[in-house]
Amino acid sequence: MKLKLLLLLTAITLVNTLQAQDSLMLRKIYDEELVNGQCYQNLHYLCKNIGERLSGSPSAQKAVDWGKKLMESYGFDRVFLQPVMVPHWVRGEKEKAEIIDGHTRIPVAIAALGMSVATPAESITAGVIEVHSLKQLDTLGEAGIKGKIVFFNRPFDPRFIETLSAYGTAGDQRFMGPSAAAKYGAAGVIVRSLTESLDNYPHTGATLHLDSGKNIPAGAISTIAANRLSALLKQKGDAIRFYFKQSCRQLPDTLSYNVVAELKGTENPDKFIIVGGHLDSWDLAEGAHDDGTGVMQSVEALRILKALGYHPKNSIRAVFFMNEENGDRGGLKYAELAAQNKEVHIAAIETDLGGFTPRGFGFDGVSPALLQSINHNWKKLLEPYGSGELVSGGGGTDIDPLKEKTPGVVLIGYLPDSQRYFDVHHSANDVFENVNKRELELGAASMASLIYLIDQHGFN
Amino acid sequence: MKLKLLLLLTAITLVNTLQAQDSLMLRKIYDEELVNGQCYQNLHYLCKNIGERLSGSPSAQKAVDWGKKLMESYGFDRVFLQPVMVPHWVRGEKEKAEIIDGHTRIPVAIAALGMSVATPAESITAGVIEVHSLKQLDTLGEAGIKGKIVFFNRPFDPRFIETLSAYGTAGDQRFMGPSAAAKYGAAGVIVRSLTESLDNYPHTGATLHLDSGKNIPAGAISTIAANRLSALLKQKGDAIRFYFKQSCRQLPDTLSYNVVAELKGTENPDKFIIVGGHLDSWDLAEGAHDDGTGVMQSVEALRILKALGYHPKNSIRAVFFMNEENGDRGGLKYAELAAQNKEVHIAAIETDLGGFTPRGFGFDGVSPALLQSINHNWKKLLEPYGSGELVSGGGGTDIDPLKEKTPGVVLIGYLPDSQRYFDVHHSANDVFENVNKRELELGAASMASLIYLIDQHGFN
Repeated sequence: MKLKLLLLLTAITLVNTLQAQDSLMLRKIYDEELVNGQCYQNLHYLCKNIGERLSGSPSAQKAVDWGKKLMESYGFDRVFLQPVMVPHWVRGEKEKAEIIDGHTRIPVAIAALGMSVATPAESITAGVIEVHSLKQLDTLGEAGIKGKIVFFNRPFDPRFIETLSAYGTAGDQRFMGPSAAAKYGAAGVIVRSLTESLDNYPHTGATLHLDSGKNIPAGAISTIAANRLSALLKQKGDAIRFYFKQSCRQLPDTLSYNVVAELKGTENPDKFIIVGGHLDSWDLAEGAHDDGTGVMQSVEALRILKALGYHPKNSIRAVFFMNEENGDRGGLKYAELAAQNKEVHIAAIETDLGGFTPRGFGFDGVSPALLQSINHNWKKLLEPYGSGELVSGGGGTDIDPLKEKTPGVVLIGYLPDSQRYFDVHHSANDVFENVNKRELELGAASMASLIYLIDQHGFN
Repeated sequence: MKLKLLLLLTAITLVNTLQAQDSLMLRKIYDEELVNGQCYQNLHYLCKNIGERLSGSPSAQKAVDWGKKLMESYGFDRVFLQPVMVPHWVRGEKEKAEIIDGHTRIPVAIAALGMSVATPAESITAGVIEVHSLKQLDTLGEAGIKGKIVFFNRPFDPRFIETLSAYGTAGDQRFMGPSAAAKYGAAGVIVRSLTESLDNYPHTGATLHLDSGKNIPAGAISTIAANRLSALLKQKGDAIRFYFKQSCRQLPDTLSYNVVAELKGTENPDKFIIVGGHLDSWDLAEGAHDDGTGVMQSVEALRILKALGYHPKNSIRAVFFMNEENGDRGGLKYAELAAQNKEVHIAAIETDLGGFTPRGFGFDGVSPALLQSINHNWKKLLEPYGSGELVSGGGGTDIDPLKEKTPGVVLIGYLPDSQRYFDVHHSANDVFENVNKRELELGAASMASLIYLIDQHGFN
């Protein structure tokens, strides 16, 4: 009896000591970040000295060069590039659009969708058919669509608490809409910007590009313009016409790079925990929240651990993925090389939902029992820092290919608060000034904390 | 056995049905707010058509008149004013300040602290002594302070996760500093603005006004100015002098009002659940987050319940308190009248920490057992909406007097995310543009939800 009791007590003590150690380490991580944090000033450099960095552009290359230098300046064990061929789409001249109401021409804020083709040089002018779903196209058929500009105008559903769900359910209009309308002979497509915010900024984003040569020009118009156009269509129907002009085009694929920093593992140097975001951005602003914050948080997580003198058991990487926005080539390349080099990946964290105040993490493909155990072990440690929501579902575009290529990896999505993301997403509003220093830092510290916990305890 | 089992099953069914009803009602509350919410446009009116509304000012009276009309427009059972005499402090001409470094005069962003006295008409120019605590004044004594300008420069401690804690520990410099320095014969006081943000905005706020006639002029300077002054003092010491000029003054107390809306209880019309914020604001901007969001959320909570056809068991009130910023007279008056009219108050919710994304609620003076039961019963219902942090500690300036005057009341503070609050707090930055529509609406819905739960189930 006594021995048993003693063992039990020892076990409890061990557990408590471990938890106390973890708790202490997390406090150190947050102190380091909140007192000595560098990601905000790094983000400032990325946004203001490099700015927009669409895949294949000279500024994307500048971002790669600077990102590598930044990583090297921190003295990590290894910094390297992963070459990858990326699409090179360019916007060309600033787009123009107008609603034509008799003799009145109303200028409209428009931006070509990423990967869209140009209009003919003289522009397109045509009647407009407003639709709210892809299915509606089938009902209208060629008779209702041919020669017209299809106007996708289904707004965000505001009832979703997470704006990502609203984006998820409205997003098919932008991604699939143009190619679907092309099949019925539409002259062009305009899409209501994917935001709940009522503003005059077009929010761009990738649309599906067909190989068939049957692509039609497609642009996003602002929500204010969409409401105006819709109201005029209701009032005057066929009398309303729409004019737009885009000169965007696809150049040959271009050599670019993922940028990777590594802290070598002391026990399992060939096992990896990675954290990453994407270095490329849309070209309408500075790619601050999408995804400057993510890349700067990723390298910051490693910086924190190194600054604290932490020697990880497993190798830890920060990855700046290239080409998330219009091709996912960087994410695919990283996974391909991981498989090729037989690198076991324990976990991959992606931060690509903005640098907003932390809420928690989403875990992809873990069993309910494992998620319960993750919550049991770590929720109490992360909750005091506002990152305690450990939920099912996660991952992200850049890390998803790892699922197939490095079986057993746990994919994790960093979950910041989602309310403000689509106010800035893919628009001219996505600038440094809309990032809060503390929100950004708390996110970086939460990722360093999770990496530490995974490194120490794994998922068992 | 069978009967017992049956009873048990009935009980479970009842519980589940109740929880399902609650869950359904909360969903309705959020749907109503996110689809038909009016608090954002109401806040726009308050900020842009009325603007700053310091107690005793004509615009504060405009806010009272408009607030009452707004409440009346919603057709609540009762709308009324509670007269209350409030202090009437005015800023006078725009303040001026300069660091004097030999022949160089460096302009400094300054704002008089609320309730401060003016400088002599010709201004004050004096040497500067930088201090970091009230205690340091005692060490310096009259010898080190007399005739000088005392410069309180202890920054926010960034390590606090909640910025409110940083404010709490730095705030004594602003509130107590000037009166403490006056005792040692200081000529004036300047205080580093109470924000972690490095910006060029002075953040004002109330300072203790002595009745003795021994008050000295006190102003807040921006954090950028504070850093510059501190650096120059380190470099050049006594050679640095400071000039400032303020013409603020105290006018006679003025008649003002709390504005109250009520939904009459169907079962206990004489028992009350209230939700409120303060209608007055500082005069440097629009009082958007402090506390335009709070008052607009409060009336919105009632609007939601009425729009859903909910007939509360207890009477529900939205209260626009007057004079939270520099006197608390409205809060004191409300509690005094509640006691006088023998109104039993079940709960009072205060929303005065900005209209940021919801986190949860803080409960003041509840036993650990009660807090546990609140969590057990309601956390799961509120968590899907991001308002599930139900913690100890809460209340607020306006509702705190109820504790003594209506014993048994549960005081509750609405807890939005705190990271951005002190970027705008009491500064020219506190404008409508810094409020996010969805964050504001989610807060209003979370308060309507909590009111509903308290009304249905009480605290047992």
